[in-house]
Amino acid sequence: MLILMPLDAPKDAIDKVKNKLTYNGCTPHEIPGAIKLGIGVTGPSSKLSLDEFKLLEYVDDVIRVSKPFKLVSREMKYEDTIINIDGELIGAKKINIIAGPCSVESREQIFEIAEMLKEMGIKFIRGGAYKPRSSPYAFQGLKEIGLKYLSEVKKELGMKIVTEAKDTETLDMVIEVADIIQIGARNMQNFSLLEKVGKTNIPILLKRGLSATIEDLLMSAEYIVSQGNNNVILCERGIRTFETYTRNTLDLNAVPVIKHLSNLPIFVDPSHGIGIANKVPNMALAGIAAGADGLIIEVHNHPEKALSDGMQSITPKQFKELLTKVKLLSKILERE
Amino acid sequence: MLILMPLDAPKDAIDKVKNKLTYNGCTPHEIPGAIKLGIGVTGPSSKLSLDEFKLLEYVDDVIRVSKPFKLVSREMKYEDTIINIDGELIGAKKINIIAGPCSVESREQIFEIAEMLKEMGIKFIRGGAYKPRSSPYAFQGLKEIGLKYLSEVKKELGMKIVTEAKDTETLDMVIEVADIIQIGARNMQNFSLLEKVGKTNIPILLKRGLSATIEDLLMSAEYIVSQGNNNVILCERGIRTFETYTRNTLDLNAVPVIKHLSNLPIFVDPSHGIGIANKVPNMALAGIAAGADGLIIEVHNHPEKALSDGMQSITPKQFKELLTKVKLLSKILERE
Amino acid sequence: MLILMPLDAPKDAIDKVKNKLTYNGCTPHEIPGAIKLGIGVTGPSSKLSLDEFKLLEYVDDVIRVSKPFKLVSREMKYEDTIINIDGELIGAKKINIIAGPCSVESREQIFEIAEMLKEMGIKFIRGGAYKPRSSPYAFQGLKEIGLKYLSEVKKELGMKIVTEAKDTETLDMVIEVADIIQIGARNMQNFSLLEKVGKTNIPILLKRGLSATIEDLLMSAEYIVSQGNNNVILCERGIRTFETYTRNTLDLNAVPVIKHLSNLPIFVDPSHGIGIANKVPNMALAGIAAGADGLIIEVHNHPEKALSDGMQSITPKQFKELLTKVKLLSKILERE
Amino acid sequence: MLILMPLDAPKDAIDKVKNKLTYNGCTPHEIPGAIKLGIGVTGPSSKLSLDEFKLLEYVDDVIRVSKPFKLVSREMKYEDTIINIDGELIGAKKINIIAGPCSVESREQIFEIAEMLKEMGIKFIRGGAYKPRSSPYAFQGLKEIGLKYLSEVKKELGMKIVTEAKDTETLDMVIEVADIIQIGARNMQNFSLLEKVGKTNIPILLKRGLSATIEDLLMSAEYIVSQGNNNVILCERGIRTFETYTRNTLDLNAVPVIKHLSNLPIFVDPSHGIGIANKVPNMALAGIAAGADGLIIEVHNHPEKALSDGMQSITPKQFKELLTKVKLLSKILERE
Repeated sequence: MLILMPLDAPKDAIDKVKNKLTYNGCTPHEIPGAIKLGIGVTGPSSKLSLDEFKLLEYVDDVIRVSKPFKLVSREMKYEDTIINIDGELIGAKKINIIAGPCSVESREQIFEIAEMLKEMGIKFIRGGAYKPRSSPYAFQGLKEIGLKYLSEVKKELGMKIVTEAKDTETLDMVIEVADIIQIGARNMQNFSLLEKVGKTNIPILLKRGLSATIEDLLMSAEYIVSQGNNNVILCERGIRTFETYTRNTLDLNAVPVIKHLSNLPIFVDPSHGIGIANKVPNMALAGIAAGADGLIIEVHNHPEKALSDGMQSITPKQFKELLTKVKLLSKILERE
Repeated sequence: MLILMPLDAPKDAIDKVKNKLTYNGCTPHEIPGAIKLGIGVTGPSSKLSLDEFKLLEYVDDVIRVSKPFKLVSREMKYEDTIINIDGELIGAKKINIIAGPCSVESREQIFEIAEMLKEMGIKFIRGGAYKPRSSPYAFQGLKEIGLKYLSEVKKELGMKIVTEAKDTETLDMVIEVADIIQIGARNMQNFSLLEKVGKTNIPILLKRGLSATIEDLLMSAEYIVSQGNNNVILCERGIRTFETYTRNTLDLNAVPVIKHLSNLPIFVDPSHGIGIANKVPNMALAGIAAGADGLIIEVHNHPEKALSDGMQSITPKQFKELLTKVKLLSKILERE
Repeated sequence: MLILMPLDAPKDAIDKVKNKLTYNGCTPHEIPGAIKLGIGVTGPSSKLSLDEFKLLEYVDDVIRVSKPFKLVSREMKYEDTIINIDGELIGAKKINIIAGPCSVESREQIFEIAEMLKEMGIKFIRGGAYKPRSSPYAFQGLKEIGLKYLSEVKKELGMKIVTEAKDTETLDMVIEVADIIQIGARNMQNFSLLEKVGKTNIPILLKRGLSATIEDLLMSAEYIVSQGNNNVILCERGIRTFETYTRNTLDLNAVPVIKHLSNLPIFVDPSHGIGIANKVPNMALAGIAAGADGLIIEVHNHPEKALSDGMQSITPKQFKELLTKVKLLSKILERE
Repeated sequence: MLILMPLDAPKDAIDKVKNKLTYNGCTPHEIPGAIKLGIGVTGPSSKLSLDEFKLLEYVDDVIRVSKPFKLVSREMKYEDTIINIDGELIGAKKINIIAGPCSVESREQIFEIAEMLKEMGIKFIRGGAYKPRSSPYAFQGLKEIGLKYLSEVKKELGMKIVTEAKDTETLDMVIEVADIIQIGARNMQNFSLLEKVGKTNIPILLKRGLSATIEDLLMSAEYIVSQGNNNVILCERGIRTFETYTRNTLDLNAVPVIKHLSNLPIFVDPSHGIGIANKVPNMALAGIAAGADGLIIEVHNHPEKALSDGMQSITPKQFKELLTKVKLLSKILERE
């Protein structure tokens, strides 16, 4: 941290700044300059709030010299975090694809789609049992029954399960079934939930919030990792902007930026990112081209009958065509 | 709901739409027009997702004719919801003011400020015991001890307590102390928490999320009210936009719009709304002028020592001057 | 400007930075610190682009110590800029109100409304002759004929005219008639137009662009003032955000922020700011409460027949009621 | 257009709506329904403003049934617009790449880069002679001299020139040299400029404004095409959002959406879109994968010495590597 004051700041004001730093366990270092007096800060300054110092008299500006996120940063650990899920590596050379319906709707539905996906070589199936919905009157998922069907898919077909934990109450049940626990966009700053999943060692797919900056997303990942769970997969799924033609604005810039700032793998969710089924394949390819480590895609046998997100679900046929292109694209990018 | 199809849509496609409606318990009504075929929908269409219908073949557009929120709307109940908290009416003619520090930091701190506020005639004191923070390394509140100090303020000074419930786990402890439970912006779509506070009858101050539309806010209020708790106070506290000079963009347009759409009272939080202490009084007055039913303001004895949000907290002296102006302004607006 | 480099940056890299500074006429000053090497910059650094320096090897960060805007800043000139238009002072104690229809539609229309406004004591009438419209098929204004009617209003009723200059071609004709030239939101960064009006001495009402930050707005004002025309009135008229219920999001935070950063007067346009006629009075009062020096409001005799912006125009009756409240509010704020 | 009124709307109110339609040359068609009375509109309704009708008494909603843009839409003309520039086809199977520095800085600079690009097979060189800059103190381009250097590049190397027209005054000089005239993001709604370039037949590269919706962009293209110039290339170059880590948020969703809505070709500018040089190649590939017809990329021999946009310019070496990948990717997408 660096605090800038005018060269003619009174000694009192300077002492106040230094005392506040010392009080917080940090060490101030005066750096007199030609235009401003700098006060460099060493010690546990990441705990300090910039704003608290900006408020002090004669303080012109306060600059954070290092990043507020630590454990998830490349500065702290340069090597890519690779997550091993029963032999499937995430964040390594291979591009991983999670596919499946938005919600588990019935045993038949989830088995039908799971079998199709398995045949295409897909290892990870998604399907929501608990669905956070903005209307209290909308379909909220099959809940425990949905989890039961997922566990049967897991047992009978050997697929790995990706499903959402909506709250701390039902988390324990989700843990029983999930190979990857999804934290949805609206829960990205549900810090109690983050802390609780941080105490497990199950891989977490953490979706970016609708108005979360890249830094916010990394800070939320930091919550999980700081509890001991390093197995975090970040997920860009679109942010909220003024553009209303699409459901969200898929911010693919975030992909190379996150690869640069963080050691964690980053996935792209083109289904929520654009929200229009027949344009999902374009955005899936764009996500891979931008450098994503994987995709999470909504695939539904009968999108027009889906109880949620039918509008953005592609059919198995569309998905299969997409897979072919993803494979070709992976080679160009020197991935698998 | 109104579904638009081309005049030359095949009978099959029209039947598919009608069947999906019937299947969902609604009744379709054909409305042939000069340019489009309209299908009007009666019945429980608020449960339907527009998107699911947009997806059907030959469907050009789907228009929601009525609002997705019901219980909180003026359409359903025209009269203002007035919340009576031990004789203090919220949402009635009187403008209510909630003031106090961001966090409870110590017994001395909260009592010192509480006594000052009480002397100024303030009935509601705010103070966070559980603080959701975007960094896991930031001060997270005094927790149970903070609640204890608040309960002592309540007992000894007779002030009403406004404090935040951060999660469902600690909600029960908050309920013991709070006269009004605050749901923070990052929890506005924590639906499990909304449902749980909806099952109490304690007044809820529901803050608008950073990227929540007015409709989203009303839908979250609907979650609470649909569980039986009508005592919801909405709160505009700024949204996230491209403007970075201020902490948030206080959307005062939301105030008259919400008064128009909803029967619930609406407060303004100018402290988070602008995030710069010496500009908070301007925005507080602006909020009242826009038609707000009340304010929630951060006041701290020693903002420069505050453990959180010091940057935006005004001093008791600044607050007192503001109060005088609020009183004068209330008269112009024919309020108290 | 302050450039931060690692303490162990090689001499070569440091020299490269210093040379680039010297090459651009600036003087570098080394400031060795505990954590980073700072290079302070004196001289004409406001011409430098931060980005160019961020790009150099071993440069960690570049911080602008002073503001990029100069002439319009309070740092440069602390006193409020007061604009004298034939005895009417703008930016002084008095709150000024500009009112009138969006467009001049006919001689009868503009005279009818002008007479009503004059009777209410309004000195400044607005009315567009050239209308920038997002559709090429929409009404584009009466053009020269509109200007002619405005000049007749000026001559016969003695009102001061506020009208928009849409481009450099028609500017000369607008200059003939206008007492204040409006630069619309979509032209805020039409730098050729800014430079040309900067060479006149006619007061300019410069509207904030839909996606302009406060700094962008001040930089655009700087364009005008740097050409010699100090008579600039800034205008907050709403920005574009994700909220779609209102036409724009009126950013009233900008009002006290601009009063703090700049010596120029700031007006509020509540009509565009919310875009819903019956909510304009609330936002007009909120604008004044936030500290605005004036208002520009759309008033139309027959809003439902208006050729543009009828949706957001209030009637003379609504306007009169608003005026009464504005007067009372001004007193509270110690203005006139 | 479809106007919705309550079933019990008084005859007077209905007549008012109908009369306003007739007055504007349209024909109203009553469509009585089960829940609302619909009034369908035929005739020149694209000229009407929805808002004017929303304002009328008893009008619940007004819905545009067809798009406000016509000539640029696929509805009007389904076939892709292909622009032939001396044998180079834009919008056809081949992916076109425009490359070069942000600004023309000297004869040496532009020739050096032009020769390198030509050798790589690039046909279109970009380079700004007139630079709109947000600060009046920043480098504004070499102006006429810059154009002269570009014309020499054209003559001596046979490359096609892409350069920006900043205003109507200097447009004629730009026309002398440019094979494609660029309209910058800040000029996207400079309607006078759009009209003037619409009267030429030179291809126009129209960049999306910082806060322009996809519809706004298409309406601006409509301005040009409605004047007779069909040769419009749209360009996605990033929008302004709350994310500040990147210069803009590249909205690649816009690519497949525009291909769907419009017959015009769409390019992507990854340089402005992300603003960080070493991440430009990722976003360039992502743009192509999303379905873009071409790219416009800033390439500079010595980015660290660039007078503008050095931060986001890639080197010829980086560009060459990117070209190889673009070629491989094109094949996967069945393009050239």
